[in-house]
Amino acid sequence: MDICSNLGRNVKRIRLEKAWSQEELAFRSGLHRTYVSGVERGKRNPTVIVLQQIADALEVSASRLLEIES
Amino acid sequence: MDICSNLGRNVKRIRLEKAWSQEELAFRSGLHRTYVSGVERGKRNPTVIVLQQIADALEVSASRLLEIES
Repeated sequence: MDICSNLGRNVKRIRLEKAWSQEELAFRSGLHRTYVSGVERGKRNPTVIVLQQIADALEVSASRLLEIES
Repeated sequence: MDICSNLGRNVKRIRLEKAWSQEELAFRSGLHRTYVSGVERGKRNPTVIVLQQIADALEVSASRLLEIES
């Protein structure tokens, strides 16, 4: 699985664990909802600074968002 | 420490553990040497796809490159 798809899967899973909408995550991370949707679908290629914004919003490490789940 | 500086520190440390020059890492990752130098100095904000190129060249996970060393 490519890094963007893996990232998207991790973001979505952690967001759902928090029972947040994409809107909520977008608001908390200072990103647009459509951008969050694109990240979750593996269609975006964020920079590490944007990755950190998403990680901070989800209260996990940026490294965690790139981990490959078995 | 911001994510770009932390990334740079990790890339440099792993590169030196392999006794590679920046030129060697640039060649292996398909990036320009000056870009590698900028990443190591924390001056670049790579996308996750570029991060994966560097990780692949260093034979570590992309997640590993963002880990915060104590």
